[in-house]
Amino acid sequence: MTQGTTQGATAYTTSGTTSGAAQAAIGDSEFDRDTAVVRRAPGVYDTELSAGWTIINAVNGGYLLAVLGRALADALPHPDPFTVSAHYLTASQPGPAVIRTDTVRAGRTLSTGQASLFQYAEDGSEVERIRVIASYGDLGALPDDVRTSAEPPAIPPIDQCFGPQDAPEATPVQGSTAIADRLWLKLDPDTLGWALGAPSGKGEMRSWFGLADGRDADPLSLLLAVDALPPTAFDLGLSGWVPTVELTVHVRCRPAPGPLRVAIRTRNLAGGFLEEDAEVWDSADRLVAQSRQLARTVLAR
Amino acid sequence: MTQGTTQGATAYTTSGTTSGAAQAAIGDSEFDRDTAVVRRAPGVYDTELSAGWTIINAVNGGYLLAVLGRALADALPHPDPFTVSAHYLTASQPGPAVIRTDTVRAGRTLSTGQASLFQYAEDGSEVERIRVIASYGDLGALPDDVRTSAEPPAIPPIDQCFGPQDAPEATPVQGSTAIADRLWLKLDPDTLGWALGAPSGKGEMRSWFGLADGRDADPLSLLLAVDALPPTAFDLGLSGWVPTVELTVHVRCRPAPGPLRVAIRTRNLAGGFLEEDAEVWDSADRLVAQSRQLARTVLAR
Repeated sequence: MTQGTTQGATAYTTSGTTSGAAQAAIGDSEFDRDTAVVRRAPGVYDTELSAGWTIINAVNGGYLLAVLGRALADALPHPDPFTVSAHYLTASQPGPAVIRTDTVRAGRTLSTGQASLFQYAEDGSEVERIRVIASYGDLGALPDDVRTSAEPPAIPPIDQCFGPQDAPEATPVQGSTAIADRLWLKLDPDTLGWALGAPSGKGEMRSWFGLADGRDADPLSLLLAVDALPPTAFDLGLSGWVPTVELTVHVRCRPAPGPLRVAIRTRNLAGGFLEEDAEVWDSADRLVAQSRQLARTVLAR
Repeated sequence: MTQGTTQGATAYTTSGTTSGAAQAAIGDSEFDRDTAVVRRAPGVYDTELSAGWTIINAVNGGYLLAVLGRALADALPHPDPFTVSAHYLTASQPGPAVIRTDTVRAGRTLSTGQASLFQYAEDGSEVERIRVIASYGDLGALPDDVRTSAEPPAIPPIDQCFGPQDAPEATPVQGSTAIADRLWLKLDPDTLGWALGAPSGKGEMRSWFGLADGRDADPLSLLLAVDALPPTAFDLGLSGWVPTVELTVHVRCRPAPGPLRVAIRTRNLAGGFLEEDAEVWDSADRLVAQSRQLARTVLAR
């Protein structure tokens, strides 16, 4: 969950290539540094949740999933997340955290692991933030066959889309907008009516997506991409929090270099809960990730 | 995963009401007896996986999820599954099993728990079959607001749909077809081409759904309903196994009495993996459950 109403960086230009400064490489970028984990003991990792991926007073759920995903990539015998299911328990805060992993099963094609992220209460005790079960494999080892009826989302060209930096004036926001500086978003104007007080009511959000420092996408950053657009609830005319209860991501293909397209949709808001379905497409027109989350609507105070 | 090519029972008639025999009640039906769990110790439950919910040589994954769901409903302070994420580790067999649960967090609106189902190896050691994280709540406590753009699937009336018992002659099947006797399925003929050797290639499956003994749906039986139709892979022209890697179900509303409609769709088959999205609608035209699974295609031998 995040929103994009403030100034953002622009490593990608409207043509989709990076601007002036050298492009950050996978493994040596802000995203990599902020999701780094240090093995304390077998299966146990220390990390520092960065304030750079916060919005209002929350740490972005996709960023948190990428941190957990990196720990599991180290702990499990397979390198790539194929399916990751996360249940969000309590609100994470920037600062130190520990991830405890458990290898559930190591198979030939897939291995399955569990991971929990904990932070520390004032008395030093551990408070669990997120619990994850994930199955990992090797995307590079999959056969090339594709039989898909899925089509890329209809997003206008980048120069006809709008990012936070295109807003006529920055809307004053209560709290952090740090994540906006780390993402490169160019939103489909058809899904931006809410920013002008005229939400479409359709529950859709579509955007070009990249990291502000130009780092290309990889399977780990896809875990961020599925949960980094403004919430579809805005397009439904709701304001306030939309905290994630559960988020499952399927990574289907290793993404090609270049900007991604992310489309999110909510069909059913009922009883204060809604689903948010995301799909992520790469520059080679391949469906690289799918996700669904169950979220709660919490009215603005 | 299942298939429906053999004789099935018909507690529902084509008009959607139960036939001759008395309708089984929730709590006193085949489904309830076969998903019963007995508390051995706090959070630990014994159960007996029934051979009645097998297809070929596999125990149906939705049935297994319902067994786990019943254990968690007892272990957690809230009664209803809201979101259940299951990773399938090894193939379950009919016979004794033990479910070990852990209450992760008990909140006001939601509580989160974990559960694993184990069976016994020849030396008596426990082999884990499925691991689940789930968040439970109280569907009856949700407000009535609904803002949905979702529409019920276009399934023809029941008397224009076809179940296993309508097949001109039973296709010989290698292995168990027991589950077909416990379900009441009436499939949309547009998604039945595969049974006549002419799959549509669309990756869709739609059916009226009920339990053969006429028991009405409840949140637990929805966990079965999302994974009880023939696999969409058949409609894509594939044969063989489509074992589930991961299955997440969102229960959105308590279902009204009467037959359900289940629609399943696969958009992307790539690298030997496919997603299967299901939605379940009740007789009051409400979207009562959504699910997505990641499955593998395993060629027929």
